[in-house]
Amino acid sequence: MPPSRLLLRKNQDRRVRGGHPWIFSNEIERVDGAPSPGDVIEVADARGAFLGRACWNPHSLIAARLLTRGRDPIDASFFARRIERAVRLRESVLPGERALRVVYGEADQLPGLVIDRYGDVLVAQVLTLGIEARGEMVRAAIEQTLKPRGVIRAADSPLRSLEGLPLERGLWWGEVPERLEVGIEGFTVEVDPWRGQKTGLFLDQRLNRRRAESRAAGRRALDLFCYQGEWALHAARGGASHVLAVDSSAGALEGAGRNLERNALADRVSLRRGDAFEVARELEKAGERFGLVMVDPPALIKSRKSLATGARAYREINRSAIAMLEEDGVLVTSSCSHHLDDALFRQVLIEAARAAHRPLRVLDWAGEAPDHPQLLAVPETHYLKCAVLQAI
Amino acid sequence: MPPSRLLLRKNQDRRVRGGHPWIFSNEIERVDGAPSPGDVIEVADARGAFLGRACWNPHSLIAARLLTRGRDPIDASFFARRIERAVRLRESVLPGERALRVVYGEADQLPGLVIDRYGDVLVAQVLTLGIEARGEMVRAAIEQTLKPRGVIRAADSPLRSLEGLPLERGLWWGEVPERLEVGIEGFTVEVDPWRGQKTGLFLDQRLNRRRAESRAAGRRALDLFCYQGEWALHAARGGASHVLAVDSSAGALEGAGRNLERNALADRVSLRRGDAFEVARELEKAGERFGLVMVDPPALIKSRKSLATGARAYREINRSAIAMLEEDGVLVTSSCSHHLDDALFRQVLIEAARAAHRPLRVLDWAGEAPDHPQLLAVPETHYLKCAVLQAI
Repeated sequence: MPPSRLLLRKNQDRRVRGGHPWIFSNEIERVDGAPSPGDVIEVADARGAFLGRACWNPHSLIAARLLTRGRDPIDASFFARRIERAVRLRESVLPGERALRVVYGEADQLPGLVIDRYGDVLVAQVLTLGIEARGEMVRAAIEQTLKPRGVIRAADSPLRSLEGLPLERGLWWGEVPERLEVGIEGFTVEVDPWRGQKTGLFLDQRLNRRRAESRAAGRRALDLFCYQGEWALHAARGGASHVLAVDSSAGALEGAGRNLERNALADRVSLRRGDAFEVARELEKAGERFGLVMVDPPALIKSRKSLATGARAYREINRSAIAMLEEDGVLVTSSCSHHLDDALFRQVLIEAARAAHRPLRVLDWAGEAPDHPQLLAVPETHYLKCAVLQAI
Repeated sequence: MPPSRLLLRKNQDRRVRGGHPWIFSNEIERVDGAPSPGDVIEVADARGAFLGRACWNPHSLIAARLLTRGRDPIDASFFARRIERAVRLRESVLPGERALRVVYGEADQLPGLVIDRYGDVLVAQVLTLGIEARGEMVRAAIEQTLKPRGVIRAADSPLRSLEGLPLERGLWWGEVPERLEVGIEGFTVEVDPWRGQKTGLFLDQRLNRRRAESRAAGRRALDLFCYQGEWALHAARGGASHVLAVDSSAGALEGAGRNLERNALADRVSLRRGDAFEVARELEKAGERFGLVMVDPPALIKSRKSLATGARAYREINRSAIAMLEEDGVLVTSSCSHHLDDALFRQVLIEAARAAHRPLRVLDWAGEAPDHPQLLAVPETHYLKCAVLQAI
């Protein structure tokens, strides 16, 4: 029996040829054969020219995701080769690191599979039917290449609903302790692989936290949306005279407190529970000034529909942060909302600066850490913006 | 006599209030008093509200450039304070560096003045009538703050023609040797402050060259538009097995040769004279492959008119570079054309990758080194793009 084959509509091969791995259902001319959901099928352009092999999921808007542009069989050794290549990249950009994202889906040519390493424990996100259906061969590839002590299967991303998959999270295999301590950027921090937001830490901000640290010396710092205290750790180690760290979650603040104690930096940091928007307004009203302000909110724009509302929220928190900067003070401000692209985030910051009557210098404009690579032709692989701005 | 005063047209204060220091002639309602070209005048909005003080030049399209948003007198101590502040920033971002841009015009609130330091020699670009007319107080401020042994006055930028100023370059004061050796990034390189392109080196690429260096180990490297060999130096020190460096200028190649000798890296680098576009095509045709390609052309787009032609040239040289990448090979590619903004450069690279049939990962997307800060609200202060891409 010949393999099932998907033919694209005329001119719909352009994006795929440009390096994009997704095929949307409305781009398909026809499917030859009777593939089951999750099967690997061939992809061809309208004239039948071979483009690669993809996982098929007719229940998703993204009906096929290219796994390879070659004809190599999709088996455990295929996945092992891809994982090894992903590991090689990390060794070149973050050598020796034991807490990092080792596989990042599309950007590592493994659509639907994201793996974070925390020492000898892995948290693997299984996001698509294509990976779900190949669970056994993916597991074999992970065992062979990454040799983990234990793996959490984090199948609880809302993205799975779009694939028609249930949400669940639990042990995949091996041993995983209740709570882990891992070394990252010279700190020891705790990770909760069983329950943590995303996979526990926010590894994508690693280099941006270094950027804050390098500008903290002697400065009074404010950390809005501090989560488990990683920004505060960096600011304190960088020599901030004091850090005020704010979060609305009691659990996050408890974690932050333990992380600060663990790294002997608790005496330089005050934790305050509260809504960061409200706390910022209060501090501003009270005339407080800071030499370093860090703003790292959760995604304030979850969908295109909430773009305007979310942009207003980003503008307001940044306006307030900018208004509180001392002369030469530095703002390190982030957005992880995919819908707010770099140009829009820049516009939001320009408006915030205007409303605060403070001209700003751009010291740095950055994105995800290099263990979260983007694909040039796939804008969907880029979401994090981090601007380092200085009041002049 | 009250100071001369410029009143903006209704609603034309928005950009200025947002942090932009330029006032275009068509934004002016009227000028009270009879200021001479080069004078400092007050700037106000349409209702007369004070916005700051600016240098006046009715012969330029940019009729006024804001020096301050305050009422401080514009004298030697004003310029000294601004220079000290600019130096403070550099000490925080590039501590201990002796070859760097210490003052960068608008971004340091000193429109029209750019100062590069090479050890104890300075190269000062005087770009506007406002600075030209205040030569003596600017000189006093530079002497007091930067204490140079000698200063070259580089008044040869074509920008001066727009200000109605002559083009000239020569000694401003002190002693400046015919040729300098300076330390930069751990290398010793030569600088020709009397004649060099711009001010001798291209300091803005400092961190981007580190990016290339960190990915050079064990790789065969190609350096297109090598100029005086700085990219090649970095690639060689980073452990490239061999570097082929190409430039069309015999003088640049001689300088590159001396720089490589001086740093004991000449045995790892071959220099080839030729047009980089042609050499790239030849190498590609001959089936050559490289693990690291560096592309740093001079501005291929000098004006908006040449955008399409220039974009084609960027596309072609990058297509060729991408086609020559080994598996996992890295391309470090730059554009210093202001008219090709980040989004357009990205589009050019996407098209180049598609034409080369090579999907690419984005490892890094960067700009000018931090001694060339941008103003958030002044897009004109940003021109350099550097993408670090990997063939997957």
